[in-house]
Amino acid sequence: MHDCIIIGTGPGGLSAALNLKTHQKDFVWFGSKTLSDKVTKAEKITNYPGFPEISGAELFAKFDEHIRQAGLEITEKTVTNVMHTGRHFMVLADNEIYEAKTLILAMGVMTARVMDGEQELLGKGVSYCATCDGMLYKGKRIAVVCNAPKYEHEVKYLAELASEVLYFPTFESGINRENVIVSQDAPVAVCGEKHVKSITLRSGASENIDGIFCLRNAIAPAALVSGIKEENGHIVVDRQMATNLPGCFAAGDCTGRPYQYTKAVGEGNVAAHSVISFLAGVG
Amino acid sequence: MHDCIIIGTGPGGLSAALNLKTHQKDFVWFGSKTLSDKVTKAEKITNYPGFPEISGAELFAKFDEHIRQAGLEITEKTVTNVMHTGRHFMVLADNEIYEAKTLILAMGVMTARVMDGEQELLGKGVSYCATCDGMLYKGKRIAVVCNAPKYEHEVKYLAELASEVLYFPTFESGINRENVIVSQDAPVAVCGEKHVKSITLRSGASENIDGIFCLRNAIAPAALVSGIKEENGHIVVDRQMATNLPGCFAAGDCTGRPYQYTKAVGEGNVAAHSVISFLAGVG
Repeated sequence: MHDCIIIGTGPGGLSAALNLKTHQKDFVWFGSKTLSDKVTKAEKITNYPGFPEISGAELFAKFDEHIRQAGLEITEKTVTNVMHTGRHFMVLADNEIYEAKTLILAMGVMTARVMDGEQELLGKGVSYCATCDGMLYKGKRIAVVCNAPKYEHEVKYLAELASEVLYFPTFESGINRENVIVSQDAPVAVCGEKHVKSITLRSGASENIDGIFCLRNAIAPAALVSGIKEENGHIVVDRQMATNLPGCFAAGDCTGRPYQYTKAVGEGNVAAHSVISFLAGVG
Repeated sequence: MHDCIIIGTGPGGLSAALNLKTHQKDFVWFGSKTLSDKVTKAEKITNYPGFPEISGAELFAKFDEHIRQAGLEITEKTVTNVMHTGRHFMVLADNEIYEAKTLILAMGVMTARVMDGEQELLGKGVSYCATCDGMLYKGKRIAVVCNAPKYEHEVKYLAELASEVLYFPTFESGINRENVIVSQDAPVAVCGEKHVKSITLRSGASENIDGIFCLRNAIAPAALVSGIKEENGHIVVDRQMATNLPGCFAAGDCTGRPYQYTKAVGEGNVAAHSVISFLAGVG
């Protein structure tokens, strides 16, 4: 049983991790080692106090160096489900269970629109994790939506298993395989009753499929953590960054606007201090 | 009429100022050019994301450079009173009036204990501003409490006016004047009915005085802004950093624990964005 699990390696997650490390807490930090795409893609940042003008890539390099010097470790597994047992948290990451007394959610905000039917059919043909569920679709016809190049290795893995992949990337794809059909269209609805049967595309066309994988930078909080209180797609938190679930805190874009690095690091700091108080029994 | 007035040049005030500047708002920024004593005195900071290990003095230098490059100006005047007229804010600084549509309070937290009677006798012999009220005590016997060397020039100014100064610094004073009596004791109560008559010291001794100046890094929010909602000495804010007064926002240590640079910059960012929304009529 760990003290804490942090989900997300953007500025909010990083700030939380630095503080838990200083306070010698035992925690697992899930996310991508490339941190936040939003940070690395920013051309010019002028309002992060201490760096008069810095590019996203430069700030990423600073964050990366900070992680290295602080001796922080990132566990690059995809978290697909979080359960609150009432006393602690169980986190499912690449089909392994991790347990912790507290949780910090810093997984960013879903900028992509959730498809109609997506939440209802999650686990019934809709999957967020290639590693977890890929084997279920061996020899089958699947769709994959993907909004970051860093997930293309998962698309390749799925293409090795599936008979055919209808692929909907939101960027210029580097994949060139016979059984991968790259489409400029985009799915807007997932259809099926007990299980996914087809998708409807923006163009109005329909495609029969056996399953669909959504490989995105962020995941809707309610889809990840059952019972968490959301408002307009953001996790509801108080001034201590506490959510409605005791021991569960949140930080960064997932808690709402403004979507700013500076806000995220501030909230990560507060969330970590709240975790420390909670573990000490004074939270 | 300015768009905004920011009070305080710690990390919270700086972060707010950077964002208002980017959004081309017209604002006045009050505080000390030496920024926050808490920052510059910190030996080692390891949890400000982007700087793996930095001393307070080094971080101050980074902040200072950021201020210079962003073209920000600090108005080094002492704010002694803020009035909310219902539609805008009037700020009294070194006896001059400044007006603005919005206000960001980032003046830090009072770590010093307020003396008994201090709030009741404010303006009746208790003063927070040597420049404003010094002349009232020409030829009189006064007490001065001071918790930062940067205010010693004000003590010298008062010593030129007063007949005698009972001086209570919380640090090693550099003042050596015949009419300044430096004491290791500390006032715990200010006494008088319509006006200050004496102070009681921690030792139990009493001294007759005509007035007392409190030169401190921070000022209790309620003493500065009448009608502002406080709780345990902190300004009550919501997630948008809004106080109970419409158009008045707060950031940094003055809003509560944890007292952290990272939290302060995050809150300053949010407060500035709330000001921008408020000015646009959507706040």
